[in-house]
Amino acid sequence: MKRTHTCGELSIKNLNEKVTLQGWVAKVRKLGAMTFIDLRDIYGITQLVFDESNVIKSTNIKPEFVIEITGQVIERKSKNFDISTGEIEIKVTNLIVINESELTPFEIKNDIEAQEDTRLRYRYLDLRRPEMQENFILRHNLYQLIRKYFSENKFFEIETPIFGKSTPEGARDFLVPSRLNKGKFYALPQSPQLYKQLFMISGFDRYFQIVKCFRDEDLRIDRQLEFTQLDMEMSFADSNDVMETIENLLKNIMLNIKGIEFKENFIKMDYSEAIDKYGIDKPDLRFELEIKTLDKVFETTSIPLFKDKSNKSIRSICVNKILTKKDLEHLTEIAKQNSVNILAFAKYDNNEWTGSIGSKLSEEEKASLINEFKINESSTLLFIIDDYYIASKALGAIRNALGNLLSLIKKDDYKFLWVVNFPLFEYSDEEERYVAAHHPFTMPSDESIDNFDTDFKNAKAKAYDIVLNGFELGGGSQRITNREIQNRMFKAIGFDEEKIKTNFGWFVDAYKYGAPYHSGCALGLDRLCMLLSNTSSIREVIAFPKNSSGIDPMTNAPDNVKLTQLDELHIKTK
Amino acid sequence: MKRTHTCGELSIKNLNEKVTLQGWVAKVRKLGAMTFIDLRDIYGITQLVFDESNVIKSTNIKPEFVIEITGQVIERKSKNFDISTGEIEIKVTNLIVINESELTPFEIKNDIEAQEDTRLRYRYLDLRRPEMQENFILRHNLYQLIRKYFSENKFFEIETPIFGKSTPEGARDFLVPSRLNKGKFYALPQSPQLYKQLFMISGFDRYFQIVKCFRDEDLRIDRQLEFTQLDMEMSFADSNDVMETIENLLKNIMLNIKGIEFKENFIKMDYSEAIDKYGIDKPDLRFELEIKTLDKVFETTSIPLFKDKSNKSIRSICVNKILTKKDLEHLTEIAKQNSVNILAFAKYDNNEWTGSIGSKLSEEEKASLINEFKINESSTLLFIIDDYYIASKALGAIRNALGNLLSLIKKDDYKFLWVVNFPLFEYSDEEERYVAAHHPFTMPSDESIDNFDTDFKNAKAKAYDIVLNGFELGGGSQRITNREIQNRMFKAIGFDEEKIKTNFGWFVDAYKYGAPYHSGCALGLDRLCMLLSNTSSIREVIAFPKNSSGIDPMTNAPDNVKLTQLDELHIKTK
Repeated sequence: MKRTHTCGELSIKNLNEKVTLQGWVAKVRKLGAMTFIDLRDIYGITQLVFDESNVIKSTNIKPEFVIEITGQVIERKSKNFDISTGEIEIKVTNLIVINESELTPFEIKNDIEAQEDTRLRYRYLDLRRPEMQENFILRHNLYQLIRKYFSENKFFEIETPIFGKSTPEGARDFLVPSRLNKGKFYALPQSPQLYKQLFMISGFDRYFQIVKCFRDEDLRIDRQLEFTQLDMEMSFADSNDVMETIENLLKNIMLNIKGIEFKENFIKMDYSEAIDKYGIDKPDLRFELEIKTLDKVFETTSIPLFKDKSNKSIRSICVNKILTKKDLEHLTEIAKQNSVNILAFAKYDNNEWTGSIGSKLSEEEKASLINEFKINESSTLLFIIDDYYIASKALGAIRNALGNLLSLIKKDDYKFLWVVNFPLFEYSDEEERYVAAHHPFTMPSDESIDNFDTDFKNAKAKAYDIVLNGFELGGGSQRITNREIQNRMFKAIGFDEEKIKTNFGWFVDAYKYGAPYHSGCALGLDRLCMLLSNTSSIREVIAFPKNSSGIDPMTNAPDNVKLTQLDELHIKTK
Repeated sequence: MKRTHTCGELSIKNLNEKVTLQGWVAKVRKLGAMTFIDLRDIYGITQLVFDESNVIKSTNIKPEFVIEITGQVIERKSKNFDISTGEIEIKVTNLIVINESELTPFEIKNDIEAQEDTRLRYRYLDLRRPEMQENFILRHNLYQLIRKYFSENKFFEIETPIFGKSTPEGARDFLVPSRLNKGKFYALPQSPQLYKQLFMISGFDRYFQIVKCFRDEDLRIDRQLEFTQLDMEMSFADSNDVMETIENLLKNIMLNIKGIEFKENFIKMDYSEAIDKYGIDKPDLRFELEIKTLDKVFETTSIPLFKDKSNKSIRSICVNKILTKKDLEHLTEIAKQNSVNILAFAKYDNNEWTGSIGSKLSEEEKASLINEFKINESSTLLFIIDDYYIASKALGAIRNALGNLLSLIKKDDYKFLWVVNFPLFEYSDEEERYVAAHHPFTMPSDESIDNFDTDFKNAKAKAYDIVLNGFELGGGSQRITNREIQNRMFKAIGFDEEKIKTNFGWFVDAYKYGAPYHSGCALGLDRLCMLLSNTSSIREVIAFPKNSSGIDPMTNAPDNVKLTQLDELHIKTK
């Protein structure tokens, strides 16, 4: 290669050497007859100097030109000790312009203010910005670390197909029309779940893969149509074996990527405790702020709102600050988004109680509240009376909002926990039946094994989620590996024999031939990268993401195609 | 985990230890009151023994049952030194049947005779066979090695989208209808070509990825609808830099995966020499057998077939064996498949010339042929008179057939070469125009840069293919990074301004903002794994491949889908 060094490589040790560098012009500064150019590549920045004695002139060199220079390493007069190359500069003796650049639509630097669609439209320029490049260097390092970890632990990386079969349950499938099989469609995988279970039945013992998955759902800040998953499965392993394997991986990642050592085991919290204390199955433990049930406090209340408690709970959260009217309006809005219309509140300030509830409290209730929340300073209490789960969910969302509102979250704080003992089923209002909460291949808990298919509401699963800072990083379960239990599970979610056979017959058949018990897990790597990079959207850690309409503003995909293409695929648009 | 060891782990060193193993029953042998069971997992086989004194009986244990046993490691009487566990056996004291197995549709062993569709239908059982597992262990090791190599050489692994835009040129795209954008379609990538070039323009310097690609072409023994590619690109690098990087990778692979050291540089052969000597641009160099042009020998011939040489060449190959009538018919059939109707031949045996041409040769022609081919034993000469390229192609195919027919190929022989100096264009009879031979982003050679868009026939490309044993492993090129040259290239293949803008405008625009020169390469990993595993089809190294109709006989994908699914995607079948 023509360059002798990268732009991040030269130091005072290279003094007087003749070097050739190639890179982008980051900055041009004229100082009398002198011109200074910052030359940039992904490794760093090196200062070039063109002075009066230079035969080579830097005229017309502009930012983002790609140039090649040869010159001598000399000591800088005004040194910059912030960067590794800051003690030297290159006295240029030869200059070649490799490619010129027009004025870029936004400046190539950190902290730009361009709209996201502009950044996506010129993504190749957005990716030129150092803070973006750092995200992808982190992602590269993360991937190498993950694979090393699994290889060393005797997991085999095996690829699963992208072209699969559409199956019911789960999210909406993406479909690919088949040209060779008229009228038929492949489905893109939502996860390689059944394939990895077949690997266990094949005897591969331990499998992992970093793999693209696809869900045709509406997009959110932390969701894309295609996403990347770390997928793993272990034979002769139960939930604890998998949790231990994943926990050690995450500790390894935190140490090697972030330099943070986790010595303690991650907390394991029951699903029911998570809902009870935090209102959500992915609690953000970077701040306390627990939700409490106050049914007892208001057992004999005269407050009209709290009087009718049939099938309802009074749930509450307390912050040690007097919230403003604007804060309360914002939180009420969040309650409404979570199907709760009334967010009642009480303010406690200098022994005075005010607010929609505060003014109506009995002395006994006041004492109970002070005791319950250990109140000893100005505080605001928020109350919801509703179905226990609805009230919890709304207060969970309010709690997360309060974390930001009250600046309770420290930067670079990472709080992991396992949530365990999940319900096996959840009721689908849309489908008007119970559906599998995780997926229908999840093993019921030992306590539920006898009656999971009659007592849907109390059935628990051998399932676990790993949560980081209020985000679900991923989850997994021990799988069913027994045909009888599998059939009971399918029937429980409303499949008849015919539907089992048509959709999963090919899979359930595999259990006939000697299946080891096995468990596994999957982690969302886009989300993990987002959290490790301290960015606010997964789009910051995906090279060419789609916007919230599923469109890539750079290529304009998806796009119209030729009618002849559709003809060949035996389809037409409606 | 409950097991204390795997089935490949115990040896004489573990004598008397109490161990727990889990695995599949590979074999059951009764010997009087004794029962011996071979217990199998992916790591190996351990012999279990149940004798009269065992409290635990092995009754009803059948092949492919999954069992867990506890017992004591004892020394075997009749040792098997072929396997690492062959000196010991386990005297079983406890037995748990984890899962039973029905009789499998084929035996779980190497060298089975089941039809491929049966193997694919029960792929989870096929993958249980040790020879299949070895293929995937090799593939796992290969992947780790490749990523380690590129990481160490400062390449960044970055993911490119699966949902892209359909573009002309190249193979047929797979399409994915968009639900969110009515009537529009994503296209699955045939390769991440343009994305990786944008990474170079973004300044990522060096990129690699092991990535799934998609081509909707008819299937062959070494082609699948989805395939896996090692993709790489380097900035400030020319063809030689890339060839060196890939060559070192392949040498590293051969040493670490196959234990074969390559000290010499791989041969670099001009495309024109490959065609001239071997009739093909991916010659199998495991055997000699060169094709020769005999126009001079037959300059004044009286043989009717060779008389009319207008625009034709007489091309020939000579083997030191008398081919049978059956051999010749087989080879004639190959000639016909390659658009050549007459395969003429001459046999030389004991100074006698026979055959369709042999009997008509003049003494001078005989002497010339003996001299040309250095004939000194019984030989058969095959002749084709036709357009130079057509004759070459047919004899290239015949040469490959002769390699097998005459058993000229040694096992575990690996002959790599680079083919360079490819034509920039090839004529498409179907499209009735010149198309890019590699792709339209390939840099013309220095000699062709001035007139490549007028002298299509002689224009050469800065492109290179890496060939192993007659298979094209992959290829690459230096890319165009100059808008003017790129526009000339597009116009040369018949694109007007409008078509450039609609299809590639988003990409060509990126050249405006400072593009470094760059070069890259892609290798087909399915094919490489096939060759390294000494298997005859890429389906042997893909976990769940499609058959030649694009169908997975296990899941029955592609399949019919619900009308409501198509409705949501705004399409219908025709």
